[in-house]
Amino acid sequence: MTLKPEILSVTSIAQSRLFHIERVDLRFSNGKEVQYERLQSDSPGSVLIVPVEGDELVLIREYAVGTERYELSFPKGNIDTGEEPQTAACRELQEEIGMASSNIRLLRRTIISPAYINRSIWIMLATDLTLDPLPGDEPEALEQLRWPINRMWELLEQEDFCDGINQLALYALGHEMKVLPY
Amino acid sequence: MTLKPEILSVTSIAQSRLFHIERVDLRFSNGKEVQYERLQSDSPGSVLIVPVEGDELVLIREYAVGTERYELSFPKGNIDTGEEPQTAACRELQEEIGMASSNIRLLRRTIISPAYINRSIWIMLATDLTLDPLPGDEPEALEQLRWPINRMWELLEQEDFCDGINQLALYALGHEMKVLPY
Repeated sequence: MTLKPEILSVTSIAQSRLFHIERVDLRFSNGKEVQYERLQSDSPGSVLIVPVEGDELVLIREYAVGTERYELSFPKGNIDTGEEPQTAACRELQEEIGMASSNIRLLRRTIISPAYINRSIWIMLATDLTLDPLPGDEPEALEQLRWPINRMWELLEQEDFCDGINQLALYALGHEMKVLPY
Repeated sequence: MTLKPEILSVTSIAQSRLFHIERVDLRFSNGKEVQYERLQSDSPGSVLIVPVEGDELVLIREYAVGTERYELSFPKGNIDTGEEPQTAACRELQEEIGMASSNIRLLRRTIISPAYINRSIWIMLATDLTLDPLPGDEPEALEQLRWPINRMWELLEQEDFCDGINQLALYALGHEMKVLPY
């Protein structure tokens, strides 16, 4: 196993409301020195929840400013400071699809891009849903959409189901539920 | 279908070597005005390649400055301006594992985080590998690792196989090859 590079210095080079860019100077064990950049994250991470009600998945359509269009997604959101991922998952469900779940469990924990940021996403499965809405902070009402589980793989062919973590969540669900991938 | 928000202005608020932060002012169709932030990407995107040789997957171990540790990953890298994803995939294979492939095809195109950035990743499957190295730009030699396909799902249990897009690539491979998920 290679010896880890030594971090010589970490310098904050830009900060906006959402993003914080750092420059990291480091020396690899072979003596080579390099400068990398990364995004610093103060947040405890985020959750993405796959809600299953009966034979259907519940999804939302939400505007994404990166791609400048509406994207199909499972409910998701940031974990508040001090909040447990499980609690955040239930809160986001209530805010985004108006339902609470008494049965939320972890499907997979993942990191979005370890070369550029250290930020965990907890992908959860939520069942036993009951109507129990909380007000959200979205600028407009979210469109809700039901998708039959027995056609789940067709979601991958939808142009607006393009987000890698949503696709990962779908596969993780199929893996967990042993839904044959063909 | 909801009417798209109107983008009122896009302002560049910080730029470093790697990252370019923009503020976007927009008005939703219900009249509500909000300010979002996003990362602008000038790059044509990146490729991640799953190399299969015989009954094994080929992986690398590379230092990731986001998590400050070595991560297990399939070969990957940026697409150069004007370069086809397929060409970039073959070049990265030669640079990172010293092998060329005469059979590269798309498993899945994905976007890493559409709410924050518009950047595509082409996940490719590469077979028919032959020794044909190109010099890479890594600061140190990359450790190479072989993993038997019939134990592929165990990769998901490795703590250093944490990257979401790598996990997605593994599932996409299993889906494509019809490897039962249990």
